[in-house]
Amino acid sequence: MPAQEGLRLDEIVSRLGGSLEGDGSVIVSQVGSLASAGPGQIAFLAHPKYRQQLQITLAAAVIVPPQFAGDTALPRIIHHNAYAYYARVVALLNPSASRPAGVHPSAVVHSLVPSSASIGENVVIGQNVVIGQNVTLYPGCIIGDGVSIGDDSLLYPNVVIYHHCVIGRRALIQAGAVIGSDGFGFAKEGERWVKIPQIGRVVIGDDVEIGANTSIDRGALDDTMIGHGVKLDNQIQIAHNVVIGDHVAMAGCVGIAGSTKIGRRCTIGGAGMITGHLELTDDVHISAGTLVSKSLRKPGQYTSIFPLEVHEEWLRNAAQIKRLAKLAKRVSDLEKKLEEMEKTS
Amino acid sequence: MPAQEGLRLDEIVSRLGGSLEGDGSVIVSQVGSLASAGPGQIAFLAHPKYRQQLQITLAAAVIVPPQFAGDTALPRIIHHNAYAYYARVVALLNPSASRPAGVHPSAVVHSLVPSSASIGENVVIGQNVVIGQNVTLYPGCIIGDGVSIGDDSLLYPNVVIYHHCVIGRRALIQAGAVIGSDGFGFAKEGERWVKIPQIGRVVIGDDVEIGANTSIDRGALDDTMIGHGVKLDNQIQIAHNVVIGDHVAMAGCVGIAGSTKIGRRCTIGGAGMITGHLELTDDVHISAGTLVSKSLRKPGQYTSIFPLEVHEEWLRNAAQIKRLAKLAKRVSDLEKKLEEMEKTS
Amino acid sequence: MPAQEGLRLDEIVSRLGGSLEGDGSVIVSQVGSLASAGPGQIAFLAHPKYRQQLQITLAAAVIVPPQFAGDTALPRIIHHNAYAYYARVVALLNPSASRPAGVHPSAVVHSLVPSSASIGENVVIGQNVVIGQNVTLYPGCIIGDGVSIGDDSLLYPNVVIYHHCVIGRRALIQAGAVIGSDGFGFAKEGERWVKIPQIGRVVIGDDVEIGANTSIDRGALDDTMIGHGVKLDNQIQIAHNVVIGDHVAMAGCVGIAGSTKIGRRCTIGGAGMITGHLELTDDVHISAGTLVSKSLRKPGQYTSIFPLEVHEEWLRNAAQIKRLAKLAKRVSDLEKKLEEMEKTS
Repeated sequence: MPAQEGLRLDEIVSRLGGSLEGDGSVIVSQVGSLASAGPGQIAFLAHPKYRQQLQITLAAAVIVPPQFAGDTALPRIIHHNAYAYYARVVALLNPSASRPAGVHPSAVVHSLVPSSASIGENVVIGQNVVIGQNVTLYPGCIIGDGVSIGDDSLLYPNVVIYHHCVIGRRALIQAGAVIGSDGFGFAKEGERWVKIPQIGRVVIGDDVEIGANTSIDRGALDDTMIGHGVKLDNQIQIAHNVVIGDHVAMAGCVGIAGSTKIGRRCTIGGAGMITGHLELTDDVHISAGTLVSKSLRKPGQYTSIFPLEVHEEWLRNAAQIKRLAKLAKRVSDLEKKLEEMEKTS
Repeated sequence: MPAQEGLRLDEIVSRLGGSLEGDGSVIVSQVGSLASAGPGQIAFLAHPKYRQQLQITLAAAVIVPPQFAGDTALPRIIHHNAYAYYARVVALLNPSASRPAGVHPSAVVHSLVPSSASIGENVVIGQNVVIGQNVTLYPGCIIGDGVSIGDDSLLYPNVVIYHHCVIGRRALIQAGAVIGSDGFGFAKEGERWVKIPQIGRVVIGDDVEIGANTSIDRGALDDTMIGHGVKLDNQIQIAHNVVIGDHVAMAGCVGIAGSTKIGRRCTIGGAGMITGHLELTDDVHISAGTLVSKSLRKPGQYTSIFPLEVHEEWLRNAAQIKRLAKLAKRVSDLEKKLEEMEKTS
Repeated sequence: MPAQEGLRLDEIVSRLGGSLEGDGSVIVSQVGSLASAGPGQIAFLAHPKYRQQLQITLAAAVIVPPQFAGDTALPRIIHHNAYAYYARVVALLNPSASRPAGVHPSAVVHSLVPSSASIGENVVIGQNVVIGQNVTLYPGCIIGDGVSIGDDSLLYPNVVIYHHCVIGRRALIQAGAVIGSDGFGFAKEGERWVKIPQIGRVVIGDDVEIGANTSIDRGALDDTMIGHGVKLDNQIQIAHNVVIGDHVAMAGCVGIAGSTKIGRRCTIGGAGMITGHLELTDDVHISAGTLVSKSLRKPGQYTSIFPLEVHEEWLRNAAQIKRLAKLAKRVSDLEKKLEEMEKTS
């Protein structure tokens, strides 16, 4: 899907900033990596380790940070954050197909919808729903009573928002995501579980992206809170009353258990799992596959992974894990014995 | 969403049991924790560690177990299981909005439906489906041919039930759950996989809750079986021919592989994973993030987690894991040497 | 759901091959295991460890490999791959109910559809979509603009295919799967994340099965590629630009991070997790619950699991993990000391 026409470099700079060196009339119609870009494409250098590729790229132009501007004779856009600039050029060259404003006749809508909104096939909107300007609901989305969705938000197909949840502005929600399902709250009575009705909401800030088939539970009494600028990948589970700070990013398959609070700018690698009622301070980074079962009060990176081995090696070493406390005791015994021997010798 | 009106304490006791001390005419309209509750709210003491909060709570009334009834002068409901009582008070004060009985004109229904059922927008019901009394299907649910859904069950939006599956009474199924998808069964033939058609069903008991985007596969030949009172959180995967005993609870992101049998009253923490063809006896409890790859014949709690560390610490210790069998051998060698030295000295 | 009528053994052999010994007129109407099969059922012996059961099975007939053909007097079909043969007999005896060809009036279809296709209730098909012969779309599927779906593919309810993705022939996609959602790509700018538009596609080969609620992200620039004959279980996450070789199989809850390449015939156990930008060569097998964070250049099985223990034992041994580097140092010190003592004695 190459961009149809293309833009002159000086047009790009006039829209996105940065400074231009070389021929501003060069037209680029698509982006590419330094290694793969060809004629008509613009590449970028975001990391010094790819610096060599500047010499051999076939790209028509490049985006570079100031310190590498002298490394190439190609027409170039100079910007201190070449990667973020690249992200904006991708958007410029590949405008997403917008869906037509208006309500498709197959949609069932029980609330007022602004004329700038695009309500797709078979969408269902409940009562007392507030839909912002330019909101796009792809086919099959189901919006419960009393929901509010901020301006310029876009929901891909089959997203479900339960009653009374609040979605901020410029949200991007991928297909199959579920927002506002009941939290997992039960009281034990004999051997049975008695359901605790979940009467809180999910409240989501502005500029949040939520991945495909991700689920976010509503709060038990208070609300589950997702801050501004949070980015959640696919297949994530956010339990009731979790509070996520601004600009947190979580990779796929992460799970956050109930009432845990995650500070600003934290990142959680794929399949990371945080147990309930914890607090992670700002700027905590959790490695992929790591289980966190205690609060983390200091910024930094944390890890809990058994190292990968060929299966037979693993068998040998894993067997010793079960004897590790005993092994430590044996080493202590040896140390004592040796100390005594040294004394007596 | 505070409850509209409120209830007198003596009304609550007359409906839910327990005994009353203090002014029964006090009206409460919502619940809260001891720490957060204010006027018009009823709090509860479920665990002795919060006993101090009884002295300072601003709640209008409290639910307490008998042994702590003397700790407060507030109007109080006394019940041995204050937490389960609280769960019922939440339900009483926050009746869920019921959807209107009848079939929405946008639904496509190929079976008879009782007049007490509520069939939402764009629901699709196949042939030979049996829908019980007072069943509620939210918009977008798709019910395959020959399915049976018991009385008083409620399915949130976009739930899919495949053909011939059986759902018990009072089921509560959150949005996006899939019941009865094909089990993952293939026979190897050269480098190809030949599909084994999955002709069993999923059979679910009464009083089961199933979380958002959870999936339960149908059996290969026999059925996948979910017992009474089982509670499954979001993003869970139950493979074909799994058998889950009554009153089991599983937190989010759990996976149970094929043909595994889980006893009554087991609990599985978030992201716990049980491999296939195992048996867990009754009252086994699996910690969050734990992988179970052998049968467990004794009740108790089981764990398999690498402890969390700051990443640099983890690097140092994880490096030693790969030398652990060798380390154990070195300790054995030291013990032998020392023993010989003691003999000869 | 027993098969209605049944087939003579000689009919089965004439359709599926293999050789027949004993009475070919015996009619079987369903399959079963050696232990559970009864009259009218055909069982199979796929593994020598079940050989004893050949003597006591109540099955009407059996499928056996040549080396065990003499172990039973029952009518028998002899085939070198009894398990794959059994898979085909299951399919023969249990033909899946086919849905009627044609477009249900409740579907909203913006493209041409061949008359052999079955388009179910409330399906939405965008513009410029190519639907192959005999394609079946169950209710609620949503197919984006420019998608192509190969002949004989079947999508269960509520599957979402984003714009321009390509699905091969004979695909089988379980309910709630999402194909082509945006990859998780952002550039950091200050504390904010700038979205990188994801303009690649997902391209899926022939004979692929995709599980319930599984998600596969579209590529950033290039495409995410799924080879021929790949089998993906439920709740799997495939990130952008992943390349999966032919005949790979992944069990439930697996996650593959961005740009990772997986060779042919690899298998990944349940909840296995592969981090990004790695390469796994052909015939690599990853154990359940294993995290892979480096490329694997040699075929074989790999594992990274903390061994399961009773929780109290685990506490004791896990505590030592945090002192493991120190323990190794202490053992080295002991070795040196002992060496010195031996020298001096």
